[in-house]
Amino acid sequence: MKNIELIANGEKSWEWAYSRMGIINTLVNEKIDHKPLKGLRLGLSLHVTKETSVLVIAAIKLGSKVSLCSANPLSVQEDIAAFLSSKGVKVYAWKDETEREYFDNIKQVLQTGPQVLTDDGSNLHIMAHNKKIQGILGGTEETTSGITRLRALEEQGKLLYPIIGVNEARTKHLFDNRYGTGQSTLMAIIKLTNVLIAGKHIVICGYGYVGKGVASRAKGLGAIVTVVEVDSLRALEAYMDGYQVRKIIEVVDKGDIFITCTGQKNVISEKHFRKMKNGAILANAGHFDNEIEVDKLFLNSKENYQIKPYLDCFHIQGKKIFLLSKGRVVNLVGAEGNPPEVMAMSFANQLLSIIHVFRNHKKMQNKVYSVPENIDSNVAKLSIKYLGISIDRLTQLQIKYAKSY
Amino acid sequence: MKNIELIANGEKSWEWAYSRMGIINTLVNEKIDHKPLKGLRLGLSLHVTKETSVLVIAAIKLGSKVSLCSANPLSVQEDIAAFLSSKGVKVYAWKDETEREYFDNIKQVLQTGPQVLTDDGSNLHIMAHNKKIQGILGGTEETTSGITRLRALEEQGKLLYPIIGVNEARTKHLFDNRYGTGQSTLMAIIKLTNVLIAGKHIVICGYGYVGKGVASRAKGLGAIVTVVEVDSLRALEAYMDGYQVRKIIEVVDKGDIFITCTGQKNVISEKHFRKMKNGAILANAGHFDNEIEVDKLFLNSKENYQIKPYLDCFHIQGKKIFLLSKGRVVNLVGAEGNPPEVMAMSFANQLLSIIHVFRNHKKMQNKVYSVPENIDSNVAKLSIKYLGISIDRLTQLQIKYAKSY
Amino acid sequence: MKNIELIANGEKSWEWAYSRMGIINTLVNEKIDHKPLKGLRLGLSLHVTKETSVLVIAAIKLGSKVSLCSANPLSVQEDIAAFLSSKGVKVYAWKDETEREYFDNIKQVLQTGPQVLTDDGSNLHIMAHNKKIQGILGGTEETTSGITRLRALEEQGKLLYPIIGVNEARTKHLFDNRYGTGQSTLMAIIKLTNVLIAGKHIVICGYGYVGKGVASRAKGLGAIVTVVEVDSLRALEAYMDGYQVRKIIEVVDKGDIFITCTGQKNVISEKHFRKMKNGAILANAGHFDNEIEVDKLFLNSKENYQIKPYLDCFHIQGKKIFLLSKGRVVNLVGAEGNPPEVMAMSFANQLLSIIHVFRNHKKMQNKVYSVPENIDSNVAKLSIKYLGISIDRLTQLQIKYAKSY
Amino acid sequence: MKNIELIANGEKSWEWAYSRMGIINTLVNEKIDHKPLKGLRLGLSLHVTKETSVLVIAAIKLGSKVSLCSANPLSVQEDIAAFLSSKGVKVYAWKDETEREYFDNIKQVLQTGPQVLTDDGSNLHIMAHNKKIQGILGGTEETTSGITRLRALEEQGKLLYPIIGVNEARTKHLFDNRYGTGQSTLMAIIKLTNVLIAGKHIVICGYGYVGKGVASRAKGLGAIVTVVEVDSLRALEAYMDGYQVRKIIEVVDKGDIFITCTGQKNVISEKHFRKMKNGAILANAGHFDNEIEVDKLFLNSKENYQIKPYLDCFHIQGKKIFLLSKGRVVNLVGAEGNPPEVMAMSFANQLLSIIHVFRNHKKMQNKVYSVPENIDSNVAKLSIKYLGISIDRLTQLQIKYAKSY
Repeated sequence: MKNIELIANGEKSWEWAYSRMGIINTLVNEKIDHKPLKGLRLGLSLHVTKETSVLVIAAIKLGSKVSLCSANPLSVQEDIAAFLSSKGVKVYAWKDETEREYFDNIKQVLQTGPQVLTDDGSNLHIMAHNKKIQGILGGTEETTSGITRLRALEEQGKLLYPIIGVNEARTKHLFDNRYGTGQSTLMAIIKLTNVLIAGKHIVICGYGYVGKGVASRAKGLGAIVTVVEVDSLRALEAYMDGYQVRKIIEVVDKGDIFITCTGQKNVISEKHFRKMKNGAILANAGHFDNEIEVDKLFLNSKENYQIKPYLDCFHIQGKKIFLLSKGRVVNLVGAEGNPPEVMAMSFANQLLSIIHVFRNHKKMQNKVYSVPENIDSNVAKLSIKYLGISIDRLTQLQIKYAKSY
Repeated sequence: MKNIELIANGEKSWEWAYSRMGIINTLVNEKIDHKPLKGLRLGLSLHVTKETSVLVIAAIKLGSKVSLCSANPLSVQEDIAAFLSSKGVKVYAWKDETEREYFDNIKQVLQTGPQVLTDDGSNLHIMAHNKKIQGILGGTEETTSGITRLRALEEQGKLLYPIIGVNEARTKHLFDNRYGTGQSTLMAIIKLTNVLIAGKHIVICGYGYVGKGVASRAKGLGAIVTVVEVDSLRALEAYMDGYQVRKIIEVVDKGDIFITCTGQKNVISEKHFRKMKNGAILANAGHFDNEIEVDKLFLNSKENYQIKPYLDCFHIQGKKIFLLSKGRVVNLVGAEGNPPEVMAMSFANQLLSIIHVFRNHKKMQNKVYSVPENIDSNVAKLSIKYLGISIDRLTQLQIKYAKSY
Repeated sequence: MKNIELIANGEKSWEWAYSRMGIINTLVNEKIDHKPLKGLRLGLSLHVTKETSVLVIAAIKLGSKVSLCSANPLSVQEDIAAFLSSKGVKVYAWKDETEREYFDNIKQVLQTGPQVLTDDGSNLHIMAHNKKIQGILGGTEETTSGITRLRALEEQGKLLYPIIGVNEARTKHLFDNRYGTGQSTLMAIIKLTNVLIAGKHIVICGYGYVGKGVASRAKGLGAIVTVVEVDSLRALEAYMDGYQVRKIIEVVDKGDIFITCTGQKNVISEKHFRKMKNGAILANAGHFDNEIEVDKLFLNSKENYQIKPYLDCFHIQGKKIFLLSKGRVVNLVGAEGNPPEVMAMSFANQLLSIIHVFRNHKKMQNKVYSVPENIDSNVAKLSIKYLGISIDRLTQLQIKYAKSY
Repeated sequence: MKNIELIANGEKSWEWAYSRMGIINTLVNEKIDHKPLKGLRLGLSLHVTKETSVLVIAAIKLGSKVSLCSANPLSVQEDIAAFLSSKGVKVYAWKDETEREYFDNIKQVLQTGPQVLTDDGSNLHIMAHNKKIQGILGGTEETTSGITRLRALEEQGKLLYPIIGVNEARTKHLFDNRYGTGQSTLMAIIKLTNVLIAGKHIVICGYGYVGKGVASRAKGLGAIVTVVEVDSLRALEAYMDGYQVRKIIEVVDKGDIFITCTGQKNVISEKHFRKMKNGAILANAGHFDNEIEVDKLFLNSKENYQIKPYLDCFHIQGKKIFLLSKGRVVNLVGAEGNPPEVMAMSFANQLLSIIHVFRNHKKMQNKVYSVPENIDSNVAKLSIKYLGISIDRLTQLQIKYAKSY
């Protein structure tokens, strides 16, 4: 497709997403006169999707200059990249990057002299630390996986600037991770395979918010779900929610579909592949592509080939095992990522957190901060209003009662 | 893409579907020595999908020659068409046919001298009757919509050959219509729009097996569902299943997504469009494209344009209304149709019904027949075995008890 | 409690049920001027519950005289018996009858010279046949189990009068058996044991309408459900509905609660008890008390005793097995039976079927009839209206379209 | 019933609950040699149910002396009171206490010289403060409502001894409040009314853990649910969970059943009663009986009377409104309270918290403490083991990975 067509398509996709992300619109309108990001050089490492384009355009409208690379080598929607480029964004991202290109692109963003870094997974932050990039005032991070890494850095006393962990906003992880990823993960699996979910035995590794969302949607589509956990309390919740809870080794020969949502590595590994039944399908919903030991799939297979893009077949021990989206996060690689409605909530938190860091970085320490409570509750209120949900108010009598004993 | 690549892709898609449709394989292996379709010229009007290719290849293996057109101008997967062509099938179908091409292609199939016609919607059968095509021994029909038309023909004494209504097999409509279409309709809507289903108010017109399936999956993905019905008993069932039941006019200004599953025409029409809220999405899951009055959308809109293929925007009364897949059956046009697992059951019924008609047409009258009970229960048993489901048997004592008083 | 108090309580219970069974009221008001049951001696064998009292009072209002025994020795609500007695009904039923008293009471009803017999399980009909009772014009039967027995009688040419199988009305079995028994069976189990359903592994034997209802409510309360079936098609449906489907012997050592809904005998028997895990709970939702082999529980237990009424403990092989309601139909013995809303639909069918038999018996043969279609659809329409459900009507254009091809 | 029979029945109920609360047994066996409560005078205000008797007997086995009153005037199971009395507990509680008797009984407990107070709702704690009872070392509190009151006291600097808020253990509120109260509230409503839940429109006020549980079970039984909230974030969660979210005034004329779960007062009040539809049912699942303005029901009704115990009818504006359990917590008054499985988790936290307070009170301040993390996770691990749930362990590699960046 020609570039001009890509741009036109990208713009239409932006418009569509924008029409579903009304609270970003509201925020921009509220603040556009003051241009709170005026003069800011913002460096982004995010999935290059239509929803991200809504955040980027909003940041520009509020005064920022933006450079952008992808948070995953396989998640770039090229029409969006073209569209953003046409709007003056420095875009270092293209469809199906190699591992090397992916890291080179992160480096490119760091070379634009960014002052605030917004990341998804923290490869951008980690590289900024490793390369000792100067001039960074602070940053934000979108995911659980990324925050875990940054906290490890913080605990070792190596964090060089303040960061807001956006995932910790309740209006982010309660919605995006659960309802968003729950839906988009199942969608991606169906899109890539067209299998019927009803009656399938689906094994879900990890029962955090992502795992809860995926399990709920799998059940809602008629699957039998087994949850694999390492934490007693989450295991109890899964049990009470009506799922079977087992060690992975106990169900590895019974599952039809395996989905990892742990933030851990090597969750499904060599010893598991060899016991799976013929036709088993593997998908990862976690941020990094190390939850399934993909290299061991290659090493152990007599033969392997692509059925269609992002659907690969491995012959192991006389059986066919299918891997989706090369073990990378399936909802972004195999489909279009999370729905605009939940990304609106996540990115409203991002936008307000970027403004907060830009304004307050001098008063902040080199720590991982939670999203300020007022931002979180502001996003909740904007969402309620936008969705047309009506809620009650406490009467004076009730407010008083809440404080009585 | 070059033809040779299309063929290769088509073959891989066939293989993938074939690997998920084990009962067709079992049937072919059982019967291949006797070639029960030897000498048959089979004319097909079906959605040209990878699942259909499994049926076609099976029919060829059992001795038949096949000509094929599409059951819908927009549902042709072109790599499948290329692959089947390479296997000697006379294929009259391509991607995005015009209305005229679509009917011309049906005519082409009728001109190959088919002896048995297998149809999906009955345009092939109706044209065979209108054109008084000679030499047809009998036929089969896949859908509720098609069977309704053929029964109307039969009642008027005009049916010219015996037809088996495959949809009436319990192993067809209980599974394909409900679990298959339920899943694939929601998938298609999400694929075309990426909207979050959770929290949406979805209005489902019709609570037959398709409507039941769509409602169940919408609820399973977190939607609030309102059912619109004309039949008291179905309305009661929807009510007891936990759905709101209303006249369409009562909810037309409240719904976020409308899905028609009725087999009727003009279910959503001019008077409804004008009252819908901004952003409403319309999709049809019924066989024909007349359930939503699409021409009235054009007539009433100040402006209309395509956002992306099969997602069109209409400006009506200052609001944007979105139409999916041009009002045609959304799971086939917007996605890949029903999952192979349920198509295996439907097409096992088709294959055995085709054999039945070819063998027994002399003993049959010019009527619409149900699928013979032994075929239906044979398909159930094959499915049970293939899926690894274990069931109990009645003891002699219990068999006797069932006959006692 | 004194009789006068029992009557007062019974009357309040009747009022309460009556207020929830509006369609019976509507029917009585429509017909009361013509007294269509004038002169009829009606013999009933039904569970003596508040819902039944609504049917009985309605029959009296329409002109009938009524004698009544219980359909189960343990299901009599004694205040209802007292209340009906005070209204002139010949009541042969009391709380906790012995087996012998139960059959004696049936005999008593037959000695009142009944002309129409309305039965639940068909012990009344079978005894009428065995004792060759004269003067019976026809009858009705409420349950699947009873109809199976009557059809066996019919097939052997021994049926002595026409009977309408009320269970076959769609407004009966689609609602009463599924939603009614589904809810009331779970309620009874919880009422008798107070166990948490969430997380429990529940094994449901039989996936007819009762089994479907029980499975759906068990899942809705958070259980993991395994279905046991002998029929391939039902097994497939259970599988696609997201339940595990297994032979009973495969799960007998894994289930926490076992519920029989089959209409068959010896479904859970000696060989199963011995393998169950400690604490397993057994309940029967079928009409007769032979689905669980209760006598073998006694024979195989080292010790057995009552925890509280209808909750008995058996020590078998060092484990404790608990039996609910002595193996009799748990929702009627352990709780108050099906909710008035569904009993209204069932008993509207009964009332209209009794009128139909009384009027038309001369034209009817000695066969088991289905409920006439007009009765069924009349009940559906009354229910819709009573529940405030609004439905659409086909336009003239649509009616015509339905008949076109 | 004679006292000796009551004691025997109470003991059987205790045994039954005990057999379902295995983790209490495990804890007692672990600690019985050390008698960690030796010499303690423990004062309890709890619902006098069979599950509570398991806690009391355990406390006695570990060395404590116990006095006991009820946490609600209507929730005493008299056979349990008799049984505990026979075991040496000073029991000040009987069935259907008046308001005055209820408070007198609390006073009685305080006059036994208790050292640790365990409360449910905090009337015992508040009275201990008001009466300036001496010699109290510390206490625990079971409910959200009670903790809210104690925090108000703490904020005003008036708290006189340390208290552990047991409700804040994740193994308490995530399970007891949600799965326990969810099930038992619906059960109680059905037990008192026998209404069919399927198809009913149920309005749930409050979407905390109790509200979430009640909503989930109502939906699981086939209801349509509307949630009423005052908090934006909870409202958003309810919306995404597939419930309608509205102001109460918007649905007050549409609901069939109203359930309050807020911890607030006057949630359903005069202005609402008058607009409700005929037949509406009101139930409270919160701790105190002020969520529904019961006195206004009396003031506004032309007539009111009891249908049966805990089901009262009020004639208001020509319509009948039904109130369950006199507005008191319906699952304890109308049924037997929460299932033993979740009470085991709550009471394991209680038992360990009582031991903690008794041992460590000198080191504690006059504050409301959360349950110590090691107690919470200990209860989780015991539960996992008892329920036979198997979970995985992180490998050394994975533990290291979790700490890396």
